[in-house]
Amino acid sequence: MYKYLNSKPLPKAPFQPIEDEIKPPKKQEKVTLIGSGNWGTACAKIVAENCAKNPEFFEREVRIWVFEEIVEGQKLTEIMNTRHENVKYLPGHKLPDNLVADPDIVSAVKDATLLIFNFPHQFVAQTLEDIQGKVAKGARAITLVKGVNFIEKKHVLVSEMISQELGIEVCSLMGANVANEVAQGQFCETTIGYKNLQTGLVLWKLFNTPNFHVRIVNDVKGVEICGALKNIVALGAGFCDGVKSFGGNTKAAIMRVGLMEMKLFAQTFYSSVQTETFFESCGVGDIITTCYGGRNRRCAEVYVRTRKSWQQIEEEQLNGQKLQGVGTSIEVYEILKNANLLYRFPLFHTIYLIVQGELEPDEIVRYDEIC
Amino acid sequence: MYKYLNSKPLPKAPFQPIEDEIKPPKKQEKVTLIGSGNWGTACAKIVAENCAKNPEFFEREVRIWVFEEIVEGQKLTEIMNTRHENVKYLPGHKLPDNLVADPDIVSAVKDATLLIFNFPHQFVAQTLEDIQGKVAKGARAITLVKGVNFIEKKHVLVSEMISQELGIEVCSLMGANVANEVAQGQFCETTIGYKNLQTGLVLWKLFNTPNFHVRIVNDVKGVEICGALKNIVALGAGFCDGVKSFGGNTKAAIMRVGLMEMKLFAQTFYSSVQTETFFESCGVGDIITTCYGGRNRRCAEVYVRTRKSWQQIEEEQLNGQKLQGVGTSIEVYEILKNANLLYRFPLFHTIYLIVQGELEPDEIVRYDEIC
Repeated sequence: MYKYLNSKPLPKAPFQPIEDEIKPPKKQEKVTLIGSGNWGTACAKIVAENCAKNPEFFEREVRIWVFEEIVEGQKLTEIMNTRHENVKYLPGHKLPDNLVADPDIVSAVKDATLLIFNFPHQFVAQTLEDIQGKVAKGARAITLVKGVNFIEKKHVLVSEMISQELGIEVCSLMGANVANEVAQGQFCETTIGYKNLQTGLVLWKLFNTPNFHVRIVNDVKGVEICGALKNIVALGAGFCDGVKSFGGNTKAAIMRVGLMEMKLFAQTFYSSVQTETFFESCGVGDIITTCYGGRNRRCAEVYVRTRKSWQQIEEEQLNGQKLQGVGTSIEVYEILKNANLLYRFPLFHTIYLIVQGELEPDEIVRYDEIC
Repeated sequence: MYKYLNSKPLPKAPFQPIEDEIKPPKKQEKVTLIGSGNWGTACAKIVAENCAKNPEFFEREVRIWVFEEIVEGQKLTEIMNTRHENVKYLPGHKLPDNLVADPDIVSAVKDATLLIFNFPHQFVAQTLEDIQGKVAKGARAITLVKGVNFIEKKHVLVSEMISQELGIEVCSLMGANVANEVAQGQFCETTIGYKNLQTGLVLWKLFNTPNFHVRIVNDVKGVEICGALKNIVALGAGFCDGVKSFGGNTKAAIMRVGLMEMKLFAQTFYSSVQTETFFESCGVGDIITTCYGGRNRRCAEVYVRTRKSWQQIEEEQLNGQKLQGVGTSIEVYEILKNANLLYRFPLFHTIYLIVQGELEPDEIVRYDEIC
C-alpha cells in the first residue's frame, strides 16, 4: 500500500500511497461539492473527472451546490448545467458533464457520502445551519475552507465546526494551488490531512491526478491551519513587493519568519500538529505560491501604492471574491492578544499594525524591534 | 543570554541570543577573510564594520585574502586598499577602510583567530594545502563555501576538510543572501551552524547587524548541506521558468520537493542533522531567494531557451563567477548512485538527467514516473 515499503533504510518522509493498492469502498461513494467560486469550481473539475474514471470507487454523477446568481440575464446553475462552464468564477474552462449544479443546498447534500466544503470561511456557520440534520449518516467531509473562525472569544477551526455541527469525520485539503493554473492542468501538489487512513486513501483517489499530486498526512489540523494563516504572510509579502527598496532577500526573510510563526501558532494551540506538515505543499509550497501569485499579496501591494481602504481594494481587484488575509490578520491578533502571546509572534503583530494603518509598510522589517 | 528565556511556555523554535548579554572574549579576536568574490566582498563589508564597532570583541584591522588579478592595468589588491572598492566583483560599494587586502594567503591568515572561508568549493583543497601549518593554534573557522566535495568516491563536507586539514573547530554560515542586496544593506536573514555555543555567540556578534539578522543553530552540517545542495534545486526552478507553460504552482512544487530531498539527503548521510534547520534562512529562506533571484536559476532558464553548453552559458552570463549547480548536481548523482539511493531522490535524479541533456526540461514534472 505504500511506496518504498520494502526499501532499506525507510525514508523519514511520510509514506505515500501506491494507487493500484488502494481498495475500493464496499459501496460507491456519492460526492457533493459545496461552493462554486474560483477554487471550488477548479476542484469540481478534478473531482468530477476522477469520479467518472473510477466507477469502482465513486458514483458518476457529482453534485455541486451553487449560490444562485443571475449572470447576463440567466441563472448561473442553468448556465453550468447547459454550457458546462462557470462563466462567472472560472470562465474559459470546460467542466465535465457529470458535474451537476444545484442551487438548493439541502437537495445537493442529500445522500452524499463525501462532502467537499470549499467557500469563504465567513459563510461556514450559516451553511452548517442550513444542512444540519440533512446529511447522510456515516458521511465524511473534507474542508478546503481557508480561515480561522472566532466564536465567543475563542478560535474554532472549520474542521471542528463541521465535525461538531454535523457529527461526522472531517479531513482537510490545502496546498500550492492557484485555481486557474489547476484548472489549466498545470502540474502542482496538494496536501490532505486525514484522521483515519482509510478515509485519507479514498480522498487521495478522489483528488489525485498525474498533474495534481496529492500527498496525505495524518494531521487534519496542521494542514488546515496552514491554509488559514498563509494569507497573513501573503499580506506581508505584498507589503515587501510594494516597497521598492526591498529585494528578494527581504521578501524571503518575511516569508520564512511567517512560515515559522504559522508553525508556532499551530503547535502552541494544537499539540497534535506535526512539524513535518510544514514541509508539505500546504506549508512551504503554499507560502511560495501565495506570496508570489496570490490575491492577498496583490492587494497588499496595491495598498502600499494607493493607500485605499481594504474594502475599496477588494472591490476593485477581486471581482466579487473575498480578501481573506485582512480578516484573518485581525482575528489572529485577537486570539494572540487574549492569550498574552503577542510577543511570541512579532511578524503577525507587525502585519496587523500595518493592516490597521498604525505602521508604515516599510517598517515590516523592524518586526523584531517594534513588537 | 537568550530571548524569551523567562517566557512561559518556552517557544519550540531555537533560542536566539540577546546582544547585550554576549560576553567578550578574553583577548580580541583577529579576523581574516579568505576569498573576495561577490559574496566574499559583501561579507567582508559587514564583518569589517562590525569589528570596527566592537573593539571589546575584535581587532580593528580585518584582513582579506584576494586572489591577485590585474584590473584595468592595476593590481586588484592595490585598488581595494586605495579606492576601498572591489571594482571587479562588487563594484559600486564602498568598503570600510579597516579592511586590508592581501594577495599572500600565508601572510593573510597569520595570527588570525577567526578565519572566514568564502570562495568557490573547487579551490578548497588547494587553499587548505597552502595554509596548512600556518594557522594560529586555537584559531576557529567558519565556512561560507557552497558545494560538496567528492574525494576518492566519498563525499566530504568543506567543514570536515577544514577541520581535518587544519585541526581547528569549524562553523558554517548559509542563508538567503544575494550578495548585491546584502551589500546595499537590504534587510535579510542568515543562519550560523555552531558546535560550541561560545563560538556561535562570537560569530553572531561578528556577523549580525540590524539589517543582517543572524540566527544560530547547533547544527554545522545541516546548515552547510543546505548551502551545498540548494543550487541543484535552483537549476530545477530555472528549468520551470524556462518552460512557458508552467506557472507558479509548478515552480512551488519543484522547490518544495527539492527542499525535501535536501533534507532527506542530509539526514540520510548525517544523523546529527536537525529537521528544524530546514526552516531557517539556510533552508526554506535560501531556497526561495535562490530559486527566484540566483545565478543558477538564471543559467538554467537560459539553457532551456538556447540549449548552449553549460560552459558557454557560464562564460556569457557570470562574468568569471562559477556556475555551481551543474557540478553539484553531477557530484550528488554520483554519491547517490554509489549508495544505491537514487530511487529515493527522484527530483535530484531528474534534474541531473536534464543537466546531462538526457531529458527535456519540461519533463521535470514527471520526476515521479521517470526515476
